[in-house]
Amino acid sequence: MTASLTGLGPILETPPTWPEGLTPEVLAAIELPTPFLAGDLRMVADRFQRFARALPRVRAHYAVKCNSAPEILRTASAQGAGFEVASIGELRMLQAVGVDPADVLYSNTVKPAAHIAQAAEAGLWRFAADSEGELHKIARVAPGSAVYIRIRVDDSGSVFPLSRKFGAEAHHARALLQEAKRLGLQPYGLTFHVGSQCAATSAWRQAIASAGRIMRNLQQDGIRLEMLDLGGGFPARYGDAVPSIEQIGDVIESALDELLPYEPLLIVAEPGRHMVAETAVMVASVLGREERAGEEWLYLDVGAYNGLMETQQTVGQWRFPLWSSRADHGVVEQVPYTVTGPSCDSSDTMFYGAPLPVTMSEGDRVFIASAGAYTLSYASSFNGFPPPATYFIER
Amino acid sequence: MTASLTGLGPILETPPTWPEGLTPEVLAAIELPTPFLAGDLRMVADRFQRFARALPRVRAHYAVKCNSAPEILRTASAQGAGFEVASIGELRMLQAVGVDPADVLYSNTVKPAAHIAQAAEAGLWRFAADSEGELHKIARVAPGSAVYIRIRVDDSGSVFPLSRKFGAEAHHARALLQEAKRLGLQPYGLTFHVGSQCAATSAWRQAIASAGRIMRNLQQDGIRLEMLDLGGGFPARYGDAVPSIEQIGDVIESALDELLPYEPLLIVAEPGRHMVAETAVMVASVLGREERAGEEWLYLDVGAYNGLMETQQTVGQWRFPLWSSRADHGVVEQVPYTVTGPSCDSSDTMFYGAPLPVTMSEGDRVFIASAGAYTLSYASSFNGFPPPATYFIER
Repeated sequence: MTASLTGLGPILETPPTWPEGLTPEVLAAIELPTPFLAGDLRMVADRFQRFARALPRVRAHYAVKCNSAPEILRTASAQGAGFEVASIGELRMLQAVGVDPADVLYSNTVKPAAHIAQAAEAGLWRFAADSEGELHKIARVAPGSAVYIRIRVDDSGSVFPLSRKFGAEAHHARALLQEAKRLGLQPYGLTFHVGSQCAATSAWRQAIASAGRIMRNLQQDGIRLEMLDLGGGFPARYGDAVPSIEQIGDVIESALDELLPYEPLLIVAEPGRHMVAETAVMVASVLGREERAGEEWLYLDVGAYNGLMETQQTVGQWRFPLWSSRADHGVVEQVPYTVTGPSCDSSDTMFYGAPLPVTMSEGDRVFIASAGAYTLSYASSFNGFPPPATYFIER
Repeated sequence: MTASLTGLGPILETPPTWPEGLTPEVLAAIELPTPFLAGDLRMVADRFQRFARALPRVRAHYAVKCNSAPEILRTASAQGAGFEVASIGELRMLQAVGVDPADVLYSNTVKPAAHIAQAAEAGLWRFAADSEGELHKIARVAPGSAVYIRIRVDDSGSVFPLSRKFGAEAHHARALLQEAKRLGLQPYGLTFHVGSQCAATSAWRQAIASAGRIMRNLQQDGIRLEMLDLGGGFPARYGDAVPSIEQIGDVIESALDELLPYEPLLIVAEPGRHMVAETAVMVASVLGREERAGEEWLYLDVGAYNGLMETQQTVGQWRFPLWSSRADHGVVEQVPYTVTGPSCDSSDTMFYGAPLPVTMSEGDRVFIASAGAYTLSYASSFNGFPPPATYFIER
């Protein structure tokens, strides 16, 4: 336990992910009522710039579902990013901050017909699909649109695999793009998703190889694709070490050179978590500390249902870096806590065995780092506890 | 599979839970855009009346967290019910429909101090607690309030156990009520929770026995309690058989007669799910039907995150009765489907192996019964899909 007395404690094994402007010292001085999410837009901009340097040929289309705060959408847009949406609701959020729908990809492969029609009406022209049914739906309600086919790839290196629910088999993709052409749609591209929070750089290489094989086959049909969409999955730092974007970029850039029969006009990716997770910290207050059957419990005013759903999806494996407002943090002994939310629901419990100072008590604040992605986007008002407000610091 | 061709299919083993006014035929005729929750307020009123008949000595305090639609709160109030809240937010909803805060119990045992103060200011005077810390907090911000102590009881017969997170050990309850008195609070009562969706009637008897022993010990301290609160946990019908409220009522009424040293002035319970689950049906549309790796998938416009969270908490065990709008439902063969939500998240998947007609296709509607409790209360707008609207039928 002594190793935890310096730095960020045993829960954080990677280099600190506290944003420069959002260190525990800075956070402890903020007197706003909790819970709230404190974000740093300059860091968001930095992430987009770093991504662009690591993947110079790849344009980022930010995944709106990850964090749709208008300030973040505006920052991404100012950095030259395009966007990716899952619904008409997300497209409307983008339009509200002035984004041109023509610069937006609609990558949910199974869409409500009404959403497709409204998106096309607004000027969005590129839709993902992974089945004949979806192609017929698109041809029916948005004739002439460009379509890109999502192929199933190996996502076993990710924390959140997605390939049971989505993706056509590679051998099927060629037939789907031929079908798109027959239906009067533009056979525009291919996409894949290596799974969210992917830690295996080889996954991108394998997926690009698969796309390359399909592109080669399509050449025989006289179809040349304009776009390759590398999807998302670019990881952020939580409790475990992950490859850097530079490492991932090297793998992807080599694969693009080596494994494609030609370079499509447009190569994009759909980063979300990687761009924003580390740029915000959730600030919560301790409502009570209780001993329950020999366990130390901390009750916070934020829980799984009003802001930290991913703690519930990954019980026991997902580790957000934690710190507290206590002046004796880093000085006194740390003990393991069960950390739960404010609701009357036992499933609202977020962390087990999370080390925090032995002195924690009511009114202390807890700082939950890497909380900028997939937090408020899942938040409800369960038990009458509304989602936290978001504040962005100035620096 | 032939047994499924009549009645409600193999997913529903208990008698039909379709509300009289919300049969599949009635639902299929509603042309509103999906998803929506269709509710029957007359059935809500009936449930309150039946509960009162089954438990004549017990006053229902409806658990607002379960479904806080204003129409349901008004119906409960018109039936003479009191209420139970988990936060100041829920108290504000009640005040908005004219409920007197004096008739409301605040049963969350670990509360934000600010919520206690604001509730007391509004006229709420009874607060639950299960620790010294909470008693001190209440005495500090709402001096003189009445407190009732939540004791930990056996909740192993329930679907959602709650006793790791909440509840004082029985031997500790006496000390807590003594402490309450010392702090100038009114030692008002005891409460417990047998766990949500409890199917073991013996759990109530055991819990009442435990409360009776504490009441007897407290008599030696000169403390006579005014209230015994039996908590919630009264089950609703989903896919499995559960005891009727009359069976539970018999057990409870006998236990109250036999196991208490005296009858408190007020005996209450906090039913939520039991009162409203069966009174509403979620109506969703099929966005697409796809075969994925040999499985038949249905993609609906409602999912775990915008309305059916409990499907995710209980993967593989929780079975909502399902039916469809298809005219050939009950006539053609049924096949097992994986039923998923509209978002790009694979964890949004709700049902596995759910039998529905082999003919299901885009545009068909799916009716998910027993959807009146803990559905919209957990709903977020994840992926830009907002929570379903609620409509109440007239009959």
